[in-house]
Amino acid sequence: MGEFDLIKRFFTRPSTQVLGVGDDCALLAPTAGMQWAVSSDMLVEGRHFLSTVAPERLGHKALAVNLSDLAACGATPRAFTLALALPRIDEAFLDGFARGLFALADAHGIELVGGDTTAGPLNICITVFGEVPPGQALLRSGAQTGDDVFVSGTLGDARLALEVFRGTLSLLGDGFDSVRRAMELPQPRVALGQALRGLASSAVDVSDGMLGDLGHILQRSGVGATVQADSLPRSALLQTLPIELQRQFGLAGGDDYELVFTAPESTRAAVEAAAAGVGVAVTRVGRIDAEPGLRLTDAQGQVLPARYGSFDHFKS
Amino acid sequence: MGEFDLIKRFFTRPSTQVLGVGDDCALLAPTAGMQWAVSSDMLVEGRHFLSTVAPERLGHKALAVNLSDLAACGATPRAFTLALALPRIDEAFLDGFARGLFALADAHGIELVGGDTTAGPLNICITVFGEVPPGQALLRSGAQTGDDVFVSGTLGDARLALEVFRGTLSLLGDGFDSVRRAMELPQPRVALGQALRGLASSAVDVSDGMLGDLGHILQRSGVGATVQADSLPRSALLQTLPIELQRQFGLAGGDDYELVFTAPESTRAAVEAAAAGVGVAVTRVGRIDAEPGLRLTDAQGQVLPARYGSFDHFKS
Repeated sequence: MGEFDLIKRFFTRPSTQVLGVGDDCALLAPTAGMQWAVSSDMLVEGRHFLSTVAPERLGHKALAVNLSDLAACGATPRAFTLALALPRIDEAFLDGFARGLFALADAHGIELVGGDTTAGPLNICITVFGEVPPGQALLRSGAQTGDDVFVSGTLGDARLALEVFRGTLSLLGDGFDSVRRAMELPQPRVALGQALRGLASSAVDVSDGMLGDLGHILQRSGVGATVQADSLPRSALLQTLPIELQRQFGLAGGDDYELVFTAPESTRAAVEAAAAGVGVAVTRVGRIDAEPGLRLTDAQGQVLPARYGSFDHFKS
Repeated sequence: MGEFDLIKRFFTRPSTQVLGVGDDCALLAPTAGMQWAVSSDMLVEGRHFLSTVAPERLGHKALAVNLSDLAACGATPRAFTLALALPRIDEAFLDGFARGLFALADAHGIELVGGDTTAGPLNICITVFGEVPPGQALLRSGAQTGDDVFVSGTLGDARLALEVFRGTLSLLGDGFDSVRRAMELPQPRVALGQALRGLASSAVDVSDGMLGDLGHILQRSGVGATVQADSLPRSALLQTLPIELQRQFGLAGGDDYELVFTAPESTRAAVEAAAAGVGVAVTRVGRIDAEPGLRLTDAQGQVLPARYGSFDHFKS
């Protein structure tokens, strides 16, 4: 099977969005008056996924981490491109990968509109396109003193799964399956992001670790924050671990793909209603301060040392 | 230096197009009424470039091959994203790469609006965005019986350079520098593509080899073609080689990033004037036939065997 057969067999489906199929570019018609949100993420084996991941889950995750960026901006997903470097043509891999990829694409009503395949060390690069009404995108720069800090879903399970794979911790069957799902099948908070337009003052998705990603908001907004470490939403399983590991994984685990966002106290009820409306739990974990920097406290309000580093692809 | 320092130091420049900098997505405002043209290309060492390429030229080429896709659609470039996997942080490499990349971006008035960096085997994935008035994009599907077949620039020099690198041919200093430039510094025919809107009936860029890429037009358009092999535009240097190598490299060399396009005979003068207007040579090399398939002839009109294969990333 050659390059063009591969594309035809695994990645070609009927399209309603692309005007002209099989050309050098995909042609798309933006919705009149909308802004475009664009994001690109590259996944490399050993960094973003392990060799043990099922191809179907890898297809899901590759698109999910990109959709998570659209979610953080409150954008409505429209389309994506896929560039894929493969060591060899492995039909079972491609079949599973495409199945996972398209299942998530279908769930969000978006189309694969173009891309590239080549031989090379396994590498997956997806670029997503979404739309957002002018001025309504959630940015990192809008947090204000006194705002609540919220987190969606739960944090830390993906990191727990990684530690089990690394052999530093062990978990029994069902528990491992559950945290492995968190790592391999993250659910991008697309509906929540859209529901937060006009309510949240800033947002970011948690890819490198909650504290580091919240740090981006603080930096862009020129504010600080106090986070109550033990108020972080954690799975029942994570809560069986020593408190220090719960804090480590929740605050700085990474690979969570939840949203961290801020909102004025006056919209607190509306935020909670919006989240309930899309079926996503949100938890208030802190507040924005005028004083720069990030302060951690425990449940008793005692200040904790801020020693929870964030993930950096060139440092870890 | 970490991931965020790397992005800040090498890839951050003042932006006029992006609404909101440093967010999870880049936000862009499409020009009202225009369609968006999107293309994504991934470059892998040993496949799309050799380890001997200067970083500055690699930065140029990575963007050039993407702009070439916009050129083939007649689109006006607007912006691009860059995802980069690097084995390690090599400042000299990044400095050169960024210089070559931004020099070409500046030449086309486009901005880097977002992207990703990660550790991993060297891989460069660029996605470009352009705009085109509705219905005016050049497609592969519009060729009609009787149309002229044109090629821009010259073909075959990039392949000649590759063969010198492979050691199958040798060239003296100046000659090698010249073909090496063709391989490492392709000039995307963006202005020509735009000038051909409303004139050309179909177009494609030559990345895998002229015959193979013209074959995409024939397939999409449901037509055939006769190409006069020895009318293919070739550099003076290529013309010093045996005729069989000239044909091989010109017809199927690949990596040329010229445009192959068709146009009705009635627009021939207008096509030539449009090309002259943007300072790009175009050469008429054949005609579109109703009979499917591609026929090659020599200068005397004798039919040549069609044995010139195109490049396939999973077959070569």
